[in-house]
Amino acid sequence: MDPTGTNLPAVGEYNQAVVLDAIRRRPEGITRSELAGLTALSGMTVTNVCRRLLDAGLVEEHGTRVGGPGKPAAVLRLNPSGGFAVGVHIDPAAITYVLVDLSGSVRDHSRTGTPTAGEPAAVISEMAEAIEGLIERSLVDRSRILGIGIASPGPVDVENGIVLNPPMMPNWHLVPLRRALGEATGLPVLLEKDTTAAVVAELWFAEPGSSRDFAFMYYGTGLGTGIAVSGEVVRGIGSNAGDAGHITVDPHGAVCTCGRRGCVGYITVPRALVERAVLDGLLTADEAGDPDDMGDVSAAFHRLAALDAAGDPRARAIMVDTARSLARAIVVVVNLLDIDEVIFGGPFWNPIATSLLAELPEAVWSDPALVPPHPVRLVQSDIAVDVAAVGAATLVLDTTFSPRPSALLLAAD
Amino acid sequence: MDPTGTNLPAVGEYNQAVVLDAIRRRPEGITRSELAGLTALSGMTVTNVCRRLLDAGLVEEHGTRVGGPGKPAAVLRLNPSGGFAVGVHIDPAAITYVLVDLSGSVRDHSRTGTPTAGEPAAVISEMAEAIEGLIERSLVDRSRILGIGIASPGPVDVENGIVLNPPMMPNWHLVPLRRALGEATGLPVLLEKDTTAAVVAELWFAEPGSSRDFAFMYYGTGLGTGIAVSGEVVRGIGSNAGDAGHITVDPHGAVCTCGRRGCVGYITVPRALVERAVLDGLLTADEAGDPDDMGDVSAAFHRLAALDAAGDPRARAIMVDTARSLARAIVVVVNLLDIDEVIFGGPFWNPIATSLLAELPEAVWSDPALVPPHPVRLVQSDIAVDVAAVGAATLVLDTTFSPRPSALLLAAD
Repeated sequence: MDPTGTNLPAVGEYNQAVVLDAIRRRPEGITRSELAGLTALSGMTVTNVCRRLLDAGLVEEHGTRVGGPGKPAAVLRLNPSGGFAVGVHIDPAAITYVLVDLSGSVRDHSRTGTPTAGEPAAVISEMAEAIEGLIERSLVDRSRILGIGIASPGPVDVENGIVLNPPMMPNWHLVPLRRALGEATGLPVLLEKDTTAAVVAELWFAEPGSSRDFAFMYYGTGLGTGIAVSGEVVRGIGSNAGDAGHITVDPHGAVCTCGRRGCVGYITVPRALVERAVLDGLLTADEAGDPDDMGDVSAAFHRLAALDAAGDPRARAIMVDTARSLARAIVVVVNLLDIDEVIFGGPFWNPIATSLLAELPEAVWSDPALVPPHPVRLVQSDIAVDVAAVGAATLVLDTTFSPRPSALLLAAD
Repeated sequence: MDPTGTNLPAVGEYNQAVVLDAIRRRPEGITRSELAGLTALSGMTVTNVCRRLLDAGLVEEHGTRVGGPGKPAAVLRLNPSGGFAVGVHIDPAAITYVLVDLSGSVRDHSRTGTPTAGEPAAVISEMAEAIEGLIERSLVDRSRILGIGIASPGPVDVENGIVLNPPMMPNWHLVPLRRALGEATGLPVLLEKDTTAAVVAELWFAEPGSSRDFAFMYYGTGLGTGIAVSGEVVRGIGSNAGDAGHITVDPHGAVCTCGRRGCVGYITVPRALVERAVLDGLLTADEAGDPDDMGDVSAAFHRLAALDAAGDPRARAIMVDTARSLARAIVVVVNLLDIDEVIFGGPFWNPIATSLLAELPEAVWSDPALVPPHPVRLVQSDIAVDVAAVGAATLVLDTTFSPRPSALLLAAD
C-alpha cells in the first residue's frame, strides 16, 4: 500500500483530539491560550475546537484564572461524565469487569471466579449479564457508554475479533468473542491482547512529559512484554506482539514447554516460583496445592511473597534469582529497541514488587551485555489493582479520543 | 511533551511528499488520476502538487497514456537527476562512498582500505577528500547535492552527530564526525547507526505493497538487527536501537565478550565461523590468519563459503548450525514484535546467503517457541553490494522527501 495524503476534515478531527488530550491530562484545568502554546495551534483553531468539545459535553468551563495582561481567562476541564467505557479482562483464573469514566476513574467493578473453564457460549452469556449488571448499578446514561473493551490472553485474531487458543483455557478455540458479545449487549466491542491493553492504559494515563518508548512487563499467570514506540503501542502485523517469554535467561533452568531450558516466561512466573519453593523446602506440597489450579497457585504464591517480606532468606533467594532472570530478558529488549523505561504490573505483580524492584536496577545496569549508553528506569505501573481491565476500557477511550498521527491519513480507494 | 496539532502548511508539505513517493515507486510512470486514487487526495490537490514538483525539477512529464474516457493523460515520472546524495559507510575493515541519484541508482562509488585504525582527524580529512573526488568525477551540479549521510557502527550520539566508541575501532572515542565533515565539505551531514541506515534503505526501495513491519539482519563484522514498525525505522530514544546480539542461542556455545555462552552476535559472525573452521580442521591456522585483522578474516571467510558451495560436509555443518542459531534469535524478535518478514544483508552476507536461506525457513517455522500464528518470510535484501553505504545516502533522500505522518505535527513553543 502507498502512503495516503490528508485533508481538512481529517485535520479538524485530529486537532480536536489533540486539544481534548491536553485538557484531559491536566485535571487542574487549562486556559485556551495555554492550550494554544502546548499544541502549537492558532488561538482561533483552539477557540473553535473548544466550542465543539463544550457542545459535546466532553469538557466544561470551571472558573477563571488571571494570567498575563487582559481579563481573567476561563479554565477548561474534562467532564469525566462526558463518556464511559466498560473494560473486561479475561484471565485463566478470573474475569474482571470495570466501568470507567472519561477521566479513567473506575466507577464500579466486579469479578467472577474461573468461568473460563466452561463452554464459551455459557461464559459469554454470563459476561453479558455481568456487563448489564455493572451498567445498571452505575446509573450511567446508557447513551454515554462508548463501548466495551476486552483484554484477552493471546494469541488473538484482532481483525475478526476472535480468541484463538490461549494456553490454560482448554475449551477456548477460535471463539468469535467480539461478535457474540456485541450481539448480546448491543454495544460496540473491541478485542485486544492483554499486553496491548496494558500498554494502551499506560499511554492513556501518562503524565505530560512521560517516556513514550517503553516496555511493559505484564506479570500474570504468564509473562507478557508489551512495547510502546514513539507513543503508540506496537501491535505487530497480526496484533499478537508482546511475547518475550522464550528468551533464554538461565541455561541450567527448568525445561520450558518449548523444550529448552531457562526461558524467562517459564521460570519467572508464579507457578514456577511456587514449585521452586516446594523444592527448597519452603512450602509443603499441601501448601502449594495443584499446580494446574490457578487458585491454588495464587494462594501459595502469596504465601511465598509473605515469607519473603518477613525476611526468610530462602524466599529472598528465590526473589533475587527471579529479578536476575527478568533483568537478562529486559537487557535483550532494551538492546533491540533502545528504550529507557520498563514498567511492571499485572495481576500477580504487587506481592513481589518491593522485593524485585530492590534488585532489578542493579541487575540491569551492571549487566555486561547492556548496550545503550543511558540509564534504564524500572518502575511500577501507577494503575492499581487491575491494569488489564482498566486497559481494556482505555482501548475504547483511546480509539475514540486519542490523537494519533496515523489517523490523519486518508483511506485509499 | 503533549501531542501537538497540525495546520495547512504542514499538510501541504506532507501531501507533496506523499505524491512524490507514489511517483518515485513507479518507474513505469503514473497519471494524475491514478495518483489521486492511490493517495486518496482530491484531483485538484494532486494537480497543484504536481505543478510544484515539476517546477522544482523533481518529476517530469513523459508521454501520455489512454485510460478511461476522455483525452489521453500525461504520464509523470521521477526525474532521477532532480537530486543527489552522498552515502558513507564506516566499517572497521573499509570505508565505502557512493553517490546516488533521486531514484536511488548508484552513479559512482569508491572504497578505501582500513583507515579507521588511524587517528580520527586524519581519517576525516581523507573522507572529505574522497567525497570531493566522488562529486567532481560525477560532473553533478553541486547545488543538486542534498547532503551526506554517514552509516557508522554503534553506539552513536545521533543528536550531536558523535561516534561514541565502536568496538574494533580503538582510536575512535567521542568523535564529532557530523560537525567535522560538515565543516570540511560545506554540505549538510546526517549520522546514523549502520542498522538504521539499512532499514531506511529497505523502506526507501520497497515495492508498493511491501511489508512495513520487518527486521533487518545486518551481517557485517558484527551482527545488527534493525527494526521497522508501521513503515518507520525504530531508532529508540538514543538512536541506538538494533542490537539483538546478546540473545542466547546456544547454551554450550563459545563465551561472548559479555561473559556468557552462545550469544548470537558472537557465535554467528564471520570471525567465529572462521575460528570454528580451524578447530574442525577445515582451514589451517595459516589460512585463517590473524583473527583481529578483518582483511584476514574476510579472506578466510570467503574460503569457507567456497568450500561449502563446493559441497564440503564440514563447511555445510557450520552453515547449518549458523542458520539454526540465527533462527533462534529471529524467533525471539518475531515473538516480541509480531513481524512477518526478516530481511538479510550486509557486507558479509552474500557468500553464505544461498546456504543459509536454504536452512532458515524450516528452522524458524518448526521452532516450538514461535508464537504468532502466521508465516514468516525470510528474504535477501534487493540492495546489492553495500546496503549500508546506499542506506546512508537514502538517509538524506528519506529526510528530504519521505512522507512521515509524524512530520505533520507542529513544534510547540
